[in-house]
Amino acid sequence: GVNPETLLQIDRVIHERGRLGIMSMLAASPELSFIELRETLQMTDGNLTTHIRTLQEAGYVSVAKSYRDKRRLTTVSMTVGGRRAFNNYLALLERIVKDAKPL
Amino acid sequence: GVNPETLLQIDRVIHERGRLGIMSMLAASPELSFIELRETLQMTDGNLTTHIRTLQEAGYVSVAKSYRDKRRLTTVSMTVGGRRAFNNYLALLERIVKDAKPL
Repeated sequence: GVNPETLLQIDRVIHERGRLGIMSMLAASPELSFIELRETLQMTDGNLTTHIRTLQEAGYVSVAKSYRDKRRLTTVSMTVGGRRAFNNYLALLERIVKDAKPL
Repeated sequence: GVNPETLLQIDRVIHERGRLGIMSMLAASPELSFIELRETLQMTDGNLTTHIRTLQEAGYVSVAKSYRDKRRLTTVSMTVGGRRAFNNYLALLERIVKDAKPL
């Protein structure tokens, strides 16, 4: 069975489904625009903004604002700390799946 | 990378860390008392009660109340539907871990 200690180590910042989506996408791309994230993950502006702020406060993503063709462009990328936290999280999930399976 | 469709399939009833703990413990035992769950998962009475109610409403656990030595005993067990949902959830986690890893 799964060790309760393992479960208590789950990083709730990453575990929430919406934020897990953001982190998974950012793990595969150097940076993504707000719009790319919103469309792919089917989130509202408000939801995505809130989740990105939570990830930013944890130091897991950084946000850059710029202009392209006179339109505001917001891009998000994963920090080194975010990469480390995400890898730890995946290792924990792997352990949980392994331990949860019947022998 | 992780397919966003896969992420949207995550069952939020099970995914929440506290409920994942309850489901993991019940997957390994035919039934557990409220107190065993509370102590092992280090939850408050209120938190555990709320999570169990959510799982019960989803049809994933059933709750039995009885008396032992004149004291109320509440036991929780996983339903067949809960077992199925938990297995689906684990299969999804396994897929996410696999897809999130760099090639």
